[in-house]
Amino acid sequence: MSDSRPTKATKPKARLPRGFRDRGAAEIAAERRVIETIRGVYEAYGFQPLETPAFEYTDALGKFLPDVDRPNEGVFSLKDDDEQWLSLRYDLTAPLARHVAANFQNLAKPYRRYQVGPVWRNEKPGPGRYREFLQFDADTVGSASPSADAELLMMLSDTLEALGLKRGEYIVKLNSRKLLDAVMNDAGIDPSRRGTVLRAMDKFDRLGERGVRLLLGEGRKDESGDFTKGAGLDAAQTDPVMELLLGKTERYQGSAAMQDLLAIKALLTECGYGEDRVVIDSSTIRGLDYYTGAVFEAQLTFPVQNEAGETVVFGSVAGGGRYDDLVARFTGQTVPATGVSIGVSRLISALSSRGLSGELAPLVVVTVMDKAEAARSFQMVTELRQAGIRAEAYVGTGKFGDQMKYADKRGAAIAVIEGGDERAKGEVTIKDLALGAELAKSVESRAAWVANRQAQISVKRDALVAEIKTLLRKG
Amino acid sequence: MSDSRPTKATKPKARLPRGFRDRGAAEIAAERRVIETIRGVYEAYGFQPLETPAFEYTDALGKFLPDVDRPNEGVFSLKDDDEQWLSLRYDLTAPLARHVAANFQNLAKPYRRYQVGPVWRNEKPGPGRYREFLQFDADTVGSASPSADAELLMMLSDTLEALGLKRGEYIVKLNSRKLLDAVMNDAGIDPSRRGTVLRAMDKFDRLGERGVRLLLGEGRKDESGDFTKGAGLDAAQTDPVMELLLGKTERYQGSAAMQDLLAIKALLTECGYGEDRVVIDSSTIRGLDYYTGAVFEAQLTFPVQNEAGETVVFGSVAGGGRYDDLVARFTGQTVPATGVSIGVSRLISALSSRGLSGELAPLVVVTVMDKAEAARSFQMVTELRQAGIRAEAYVGTGKFGDQMKYADKRGAAIAVIEGGDERAKGEVTIKDLALGAELAKSVESRAAWVANRQAQISVKRDALVAEIKTLLRKG
Repeated sequence: MSDSRPTKATKPKARLPRGFRDRGAAEIAAERRVIETIRGVYEAYGFQPLETPAFEYTDALGKFLPDVDRPNEGVFSLKDDDEQWLSLRYDLTAPLARHVAANFQNLAKPYRRYQVGPVWRNEKPGPGRYREFLQFDADTVGSASPSADAELLMMLSDTLEALGLKRGEYIVKLNSRKLLDAVMNDAGIDPSRRGTVLRAMDKFDRLGERGVRLLLGEGRKDESGDFTKGAGLDAAQTDPVMELLLGKTERYQGSAAMQDLLAIKALLTECGYGEDRVVIDSSTIRGLDYYTGAVFEAQLTFPVQNEAGETVVFGSVAGGGRYDDLVARFTGQTVPATGVSIGVSRLISALSSRGLSGELAPLVVVTVMDKAEAARSFQMVTELRQAGIRAEAYVGTGKFGDQMKYADKRGAAIAVIEGGDERAKGEVTIKDLALGAELAKSVESRAAWVANRQAQISVKRDALVAEIKTLLRKG
Repeated sequence: MSDSRPTKATKPKARLPRGFRDRGAAEIAAERRVIETIRGVYEAYGFQPLETPAFEYTDALGKFLPDVDRPNEGVFSLKDDDEQWLSLRYDLTAPLARHVAANFQNLAKPYRRYQVGPVWRNEKPGPGRYREFLQFDADTVGSASPSADAELLMMLSDTLEALGLKRGEYIVKLNSRKLLDAVMNDAGIDPSRRGTVLRAMDKFDRLGERGVRLLLGEGRKDESGDFTKGAGLDAAQTDPVMELLLGKTERYQGSAAMQDLLAIKALLTECGYGEDRVVIDSSTIRGLDYYTGAVFEAQLTFPVQNEAGETVVFGSVAGGGRYDDLVARFTGQTVPATGVSIGVSRLISALSSRGLSGELAPLVVVTVMDKAEAARSFQMVTELRQAGIRAEAYVGTGKFGDQMKYADKRGAAIAVIEGGDERAKGEVTIKDLALGAELAKSVESRAAWVANRQAQISVKRDALVAEIKTLLRKG
């Protein structure tokens, strides 16, 4: 290693790539709780897990990201050594379509799978906007039945409630891409403009009627002065689109699209999933091009503090829809499919304001007063662990003071000390660090010393585990 | 979507990139069990989780892969849009060193973290050799104490036993890179050749004395005729290296390196981790260049069937060591560190021969005989789930025969059927698919029909959950 030791000139900087981040214990524990809860509901529904790799061939992934203006199409890509282009997955739907196309004959259909994992977007990072994030998807492939869509919406509702949300704190909105298609057909909007129209409509929540009208027409300048090109519709084309966003769907009551939606809604109602959980909302769009039927979105209805500390309505935490043509990209044969994706990181930041916490179990740190006797400390932690208590012996080289500071910094609940005198008496000292900190807060220095004495007890060595169990139960 | 429907010419092929694979329910469930077991032990030891992103700046990752001959250095890299090079992590140690260097002041030291996640190697794929695989690492940063190494070895032993391995089915081998350095110094081996010497020594298990002698000297031609260049040592340099591999370490008993090893070993022995779990073995090398002290490796001692069905000794499932210079790459300051990495995928394939299984809970499929009454089937599965039973209503469009075939293909334990007559009587039919399949195996066609009747019962609708619970308990 000596030859690779850095000089000042060659030393790399210890920094994270833009748009990526490290995550610590509390966030990981919270995420684990969320993932296990979702997984529990999805498996109870009979969905089975699938894992696909991070990489796919670029042509197999396709280009389905909404932000089509960027040159890189939002994807991280590189060339393999056989000159074929590979890309990191940007969602979990495109890899599923590839998997289904490749394994169609062997799958029990309807094929219902869930997948959880990171996806990568080669986008401009910003506050709270990362280039790697976690998605949790469930999809049903091989069924055109409205019951497949309805099942996903029931499962989504059950999941949000299993995560601790109360009825009324979320709402699942349901619409149909076919309804949008019918409106655009009737308005004579050219197919080439429909992607732009959809993305404009998708901004209704944020920009309101006026903003969307601009984006549907000539274009819109935002507050920063940036201009977004419009879809170039005339007033006769814009009006029916705006009517749909405003919920005026009377003309389409008898349409096939509306019949589909009503079939899904009827099944939901019969199963007890009423208007307090799922509503038809003709302003729900979803930006992706590939949807062909039902689209849906789960929104949180309560105010949430954002990263800047502002109170906002959080909006969408999950969404999905029917995409009957994705497998056909490979096979030429249409395979009906419908799916829902939960943005786990977004959901966690919303839930954390509802008191979702991820804490590891309380920790006991056993100090090492005499290096030659370190094994005595290791024996203590072994006993504690066997009793189900998270415990560690100090493995550093610091003195007693450093060891107590370490225990503090780790947020340990309890420290255990066995000095020479205590060892001779067959005793150990148990220090309640939480109590000690609490007592020390409000008192003067001498009183603090007394308080400190109150927060620690001496017990016989063989009573160690029982005493700590008692202490942790109290805490 | 109609405009992006493929023509024959543009249809992509549904294929996986070379060296990557999809994984299904059984493997994922087995992996989850293994991960949760390791995590449980590591958290009980007080290690805390960290997650770093898939990408690092290429210069921050460094080049520490053993296979230095390939042009790409075994790493997947691409250029960010600000012209900086990014690489996917090839292990979890380099990102840890970056994290520690960037957050040094805020970490409670010794900093003990675990991380589990995929790593990527841009290597030539082969049978059982993938370019994406899972590692589970634990590291202690900021302690030069032998107790930090000893703790990792205790934890590794505890983990392997928690995974179901018996004492004697695994062995942890311990050596010191300093011992290797001392031998190479004494033999006058040039520092520039030491990497090649280490990699040659690391092949002792596979190639034996003769093969390693060739690799230390002029080079070796393998069975396929490929020639590997040797380290170019003369006989006077080769002999002491071979002696070390053969365990002749008498000359070094008093060396600092050996004292280190003995201190680790003594603590292990005092804590009850004897020769049946951890042994000093001077032929244990570990290929990576960055180790600076103790190195260790856990091997399975029982024969395992490989992918080709051949019986082999499986060898290493985990390894690690002390790397005191990795943080210094960034900061210039040496920070003592030691860590262990478990190759999860390798471990799972070894454990699967010991009966490690990952099965989801038994599944109940409720058929839908009359689409207009689908809600009745959904209500049944809701009740079953509330009783903790994995259950699904059929969401496809197939007829009854298709639905039963589906239930079979899913490996469902039970099918539930409510036809019109049964509905009128307030009854449902419960079919024990496992029993049905068992009975049908050994009998003729008429007898099969009788057997089939035996494997199904009619019960009152409101007894559904209780009956299925009873059936699943029997199964």
